[in-house]
Amino acid sequence: MKVYVSADLPRDLAGRLSRAVEVVGRDRMGEAEAALCFRITPEELKSMPRLRFLQVITAGLDHLPWEAIPPHVVVAGNAGSNADAVAEFAVAMALGAYKRVIHYDRRMKRGEYGRDVGIPMAVGSKAAVLGLGEIGTRVAKMLATLGLRVYGFSRTRKEGPWVFTSDLLEAMAGARIAVSALPLNKHTRGLVKYQHLAAMDGEGVFVNVGRAEVVERGAVERILRERPGFIFASDVWWSRSDFAKDADIISLPNVVATPWVAGGYGNELVWRRMLEEAVDNLLRWVNGETPRNIARREDYV
Amino acid sequence: MKVYVSADLPRDLAGRLSRAVEVVGRDRMGEAEAALCFRITPEELKSMPRLRFLQVITAGLDHLPWEAIPPHVVVAGNAGSNADAVAEFAVAMALGAYKRVIHYDRRMKRGEYGRDVGIPMAVGSKAAVLGLGEIGTRVAKMLATLGLRVYGFSRTRKEGPWVFTSDLLEAMAGARIAVSALPLNKHTRGLVKYQHLAAMDGEGVFVNVGRAEVVERGAVERILRERPGFIFASDVWWSRSDFAKDADIISLPNVVATPWVAGGYGNELVWRRMLEEAVDNLLRWVNGETPRNIARREDYV
Repeated sequence: MKVYVSADLPRDLAGRLSRAVEVVGRDRMGEAEAALCFRITPEELKSMPRLRFLQVITAGLDHLPWEAIPPHVVVAGNAGSNADAVAEFAVAMALGAYKRVIHYDRRMKRGEYGRDVGIPMAVGSKAAVLGLGEIGTRVAKMLATLGLRVYGFSRTRKEGPWVFTSDLLEAMAGARIAVSALPLNKHTRGLVKYQHLAAMDGEGVFVNVGRAEVVERGAVERILRERPGFIFASDVWWSRSDFAKDADIISLPNVVATPWVAGGYGNELVWRRMLEEAVDNLLRWVNGETPRNIARREDYV
Repeated sequence: MKVYVSADLPRDLAGRLSRAVEVVGRDRMGEAEAALCFRITPEELKSMPRLRFLQVITAGLDHLPWEAIPPHVVVAGNAGSNADAVAEFAVAMALGAYKRVIHYDRRMKRGEYGRDVGIPMAVGSKAAVLGLGEIGTRVAKMLATLGLRVYGFSRTRKEGPWVFTSDLLEAMAGARIAVSALPLNKHTRGLVKYQHLAAMDGEGVFVNVGRAEVVERGAVERILRERPGFIFASDVWWSRSDFAKDADIISLPNVVATPWVAGGYGNELVWRRMLEEAVDNLLRWVNGETPRNIARREDYV
């Protein structure tokens, strides 16, 4: 079994892989039946006519050139590998914004020592968690243990410490904290619209740690302009990594912004775990077992 | 029974009190056997020779003129009445600072879109909670449910989801998050010294939602200068409400600062609950029951 690897692996992980398969580089990728990568181009895909399995190291799969992936190729993502990191970050962002810590810290740094806004309570308040995958489930459990009444939104029913709904408006109506951990696919693109944000509490906080494109940009601009007390807190941006293009929103006073770091940026343990889980999953396929996180092609194409 | 009330009570609470006791104002305070107040002056105390019970509306009692309070006067505080608010705020501050949400938000607001520091993990990390009263207990439970290994520090043993210790250095050594919810009294003034802060993890966050004077100011200045990755996050300041006097510390990049708002500033529900619990506790004394939160005079004098 030949596997094309386009990621740098730590020595022990590379060793584990080499003992099970023959790792090939770019020069021999034509022989590869499987590939391990962060991202892949249509050209690389064209150079691997024998490809049957693609293991992606990222949790999200929305960046893949789906039209160029032959339908018989099985694609596996890496959901869950950094879910702890993202979930913690989401809760930190939600509480830091909602309890107005960030608001008052900004004022104090400017030498404005007066108090202007009240501190809302989290306990007993309604929260909405959009997406009940590895990240959303963790976020929902954390918010529930902090005493919030959590509504969990997902396409398919999932039980947990939340009121389940597949009606987005029901999930978000009156919510004081909403966290989106939705993946980006053809069902979720532009799903969160003005009416959903407007249905939240006027002091509410919408947190996005999934993908920016799940939320309509124009809806965010409008709600932030209309409601100075409403907070949009996001780690992900419509411009992807070209954050300056979203500066008009990032610079607004009722926006909390971080540069796509929730997944444990710069944290070697998180990084290591992501690579490890991707290699493990690839080896599942190699050994004839069923890999985890197999993508539904129809969600993307 | 005559009670001197120096606080504004909502109509229904004032009514509840009036049905049980005779409320007197400043002109007849000489007849009062009990008093309900936020703060009290030595002059007021001198004007109440018949005083036997003092119900304070605040949780902390360190602002009372203890030397002027006759030893036979029973003093009750209001710990717990806003403990939910302070505990939520402490966790919001701890996570917002520790997960570097606040750090990156500041950078994004300045148009600095690059990533400089890694995002540490909370789950599995050691946390220290100083003070296991109403607030500390709540904070410790929240941090434990978020997956941190919590050490609880207090003078007297208390069981909970923490490793109990009455050794401050043991509690703080290696901790990545430490939260002080200690009251200020003669046992806690200046308790947290340089050696304790220096024993924490270099990426750690020390959060104070109790009283500033529990921590040595010079120790904070020194650790912040020596360790740029260490964060001091505080809602309370040595200058009390005259925050400009602490501007040298507040303005440091590794400081997160809020203006003494954790107790639910501007939140009418929190405010109402504090007044209600104080009135209830006063009525306990009036009815011959044992009031809650009776202060130990020897902690202050």
